[in-house]
Amino acid sequence: MLTVFGSTALDTIRTPSKTLKNVLGGAATFAGISASYFVDTGLIAVVGKDFPKKYKKTLDNYLDLRGLKIEENGKTFRYDGKYDETLSNRETMKTELNVLGTFKPQVPQEYKNSKFVYLANNDPDQNVKLIKEFGNAKFSMCDTIEFWISTKRNSVIKMIKSVDAVVINDEEAKLLTKENNLIKCAKKMMEWGSKYVIIKKGEHGSLMFYDDVIFPCAGFSLEDVVDPTGAGDSFAGAMIGYLANKNSTSLSNIKRAVVYGNVLGSFAVEKYGLDGLLNLTKKNITDRVKQYERMIRF
Amino acid sequence: MLTVFGSTALDTIRTPSKTLKNVLGGAATFAGISASYFVDTGLIAVVGKDFPKKYKKTLDNYLDLRGLKIEENGKTFRYDGKYDETLSNRETMKTELNVLGTFKPQVPQEYKNSKFVYLANNDPDQNVKLIKEFGNAKFSMCDTIEFWISTKRNSVIKMIKSVDAVVINDEEAKLLTKENNLIKCAKKMMEWGSKYVIIKKGEHGSLMFYDDVIFPCAGFSLEDVVDPTGAGDSFAGAMIGYLANKNSTSLSNIKRAVVYGNVLGSFAVEKYGLDGLLNLTKKNITDRVKQYERMIRF
Repeated sequence: MLTVFGSTALDTIRTPSKTLKNVLGGAATFAGISASYFVDTGLIAVVGKDFPKKYKKTLDNYLDLRGLKIEENGKTFRYDGKYDETLSNRETMKTELNVLGTFKPQVPQEYKNSKFVYLANNDPDQNVKLIKEFGNAKFSMCDTIEFWISTKRNSVIKMIKSVDAVVINDEEAKLLTKENNLIKCAKKMMEWGSKYVIIKKGEHGSLMFYDDVIFPCAGFSLEDVVDPTGAGDSFAGAMIGYLANKNSTSLSNIKRAVVYGNVLGSFAVEKYGLDGLLNLTKKNITDRVKQYERMIRF
Repeated sequence: MLTVFGSTALDTIRTPSKTLKNVLGGAATFAGISASYFVDTGLIAVVGKDFPKKYKKTLDNYLDLRGLKIEENGKTFRYDGKYDETLSNRETMKTELNVLGTFKPQVPQEYKNSKFVYLANNDPDQNVKLIKEFGNAKFSMCDTIEFWISTKRNSVIKMIKSVDAVVINDEEAKLLTKENNLIKCAKKMMEWGSKYVIIKKGEHGSLMFYDDVIFPCAGFSLEDVVDPTGAGDSFAGAMIGYLANKNSTSLSNIKRAVVYGNVLGSFAVEKYGLDGLLNLTKKNITDRVKQYERMIRF
């Protein structure tokens, strides 16, 4: 089993072609649903009493929700962001932490034996505390966001020490490590204690680092990208979901997991909000992986 | 034989770690020397009476110079540019066209049978005129730069119609086609008449387009990049040099040519100015291609 800990949100997403209001989002939502195509996935997250029933049902279709707390005295975490016309830059219009601000995550007994644990974008101190409850974890991975790097950099570094792998986007990797070159960024994170570092580069794919191995992975080229929201979280979820399914962290499985990460990220951006990630079949996924393999062959 | 037409320059390059003054540069210099590792390469370019003998000797070590005009009544084209600390952005400090401004290129008789022709960054109208002199050309390729896109967009489009392949960097592809998505950019250039489009993405590698084929190629990851000058020109030169050597434009050779392009671009950025491209051996190149193949395998 895989446990995913992170945010479940009501997002407002403003793209040049469409604005979505209060739709189901959040890092753990994307990562968890993406992972669920590979393995049974439990969610640890919190929502408020305003969380729509239909969204609860969506989550329930993909995830074990014994770790989802519904906080009767508060509102769900809300995020409002606006993309520019290139879809490469997003401006945060508003963030309302609401129930996420005071959440004390509890790990259900059934989750505690998870061999694979993914810590999405929550408070790094909280993540460090939480990972200790997974005594049997074989592989743990975390992401982080600009907010924590800017406000709690030392805690982020401590978190990196406490996990096996860091998955992080390129701009955040540079901000965190104060390096401009991505290999130097990765080396620093490995010095801090993470065995694996995966740097996500959006449409340009990703770089995976382990010891002296570098695995560059070109992006899956797409002509019609409508909404990049959640692509990185979908990447991470697919990656750890694939590994959990294989129950392996061999280097060759890590590389294949990165390819699956790229592919699930590519599904996520083709439709608005969570729609690109819903209702996929295993065949959709393996077909696209095969298409990718053909594409990059020379 | 391959003919390369473009600029030979005296560059001033300001990087965060070092400033080089009046060093040998220019698109045709980088492209020609890069190509010369694969095939006999003739240069069509102009320099002034101030062009140092030692640089003439460097060119002579790699290239057929029957097409190099030494203009006694003028100074060599000079470019002065400054990189920011990320080495991703370059600001032009000064451009002095000098003898390049009035150059009337002449194709030496011996070059006219070239089956492969590369038109680097010169005036698109001049490029269109020049390509007509190569009646036996099997494969012609051009690049262009922001200056021509901004001042002579229609001529650039005409030029694209008159060649087999366009090699262009991502930002310039977007500027030229007025599209944000690179697949859409490539489709537009193919509609304009180019059979192949190769979009260079710097450290992120490249995308090659032909008909409905897309070939994404991850960059060769490098930890120590000191000077990106000429990387794109080296890419293009290696690409067409490889094809000229094979005397083939099969799709599989085009893909391999792109890989060689990435690899020669990676050599170029590891040292200052032209130094990364000089004194390579064929073994250096094939070793790095093999290293690249191992790197991206999964």
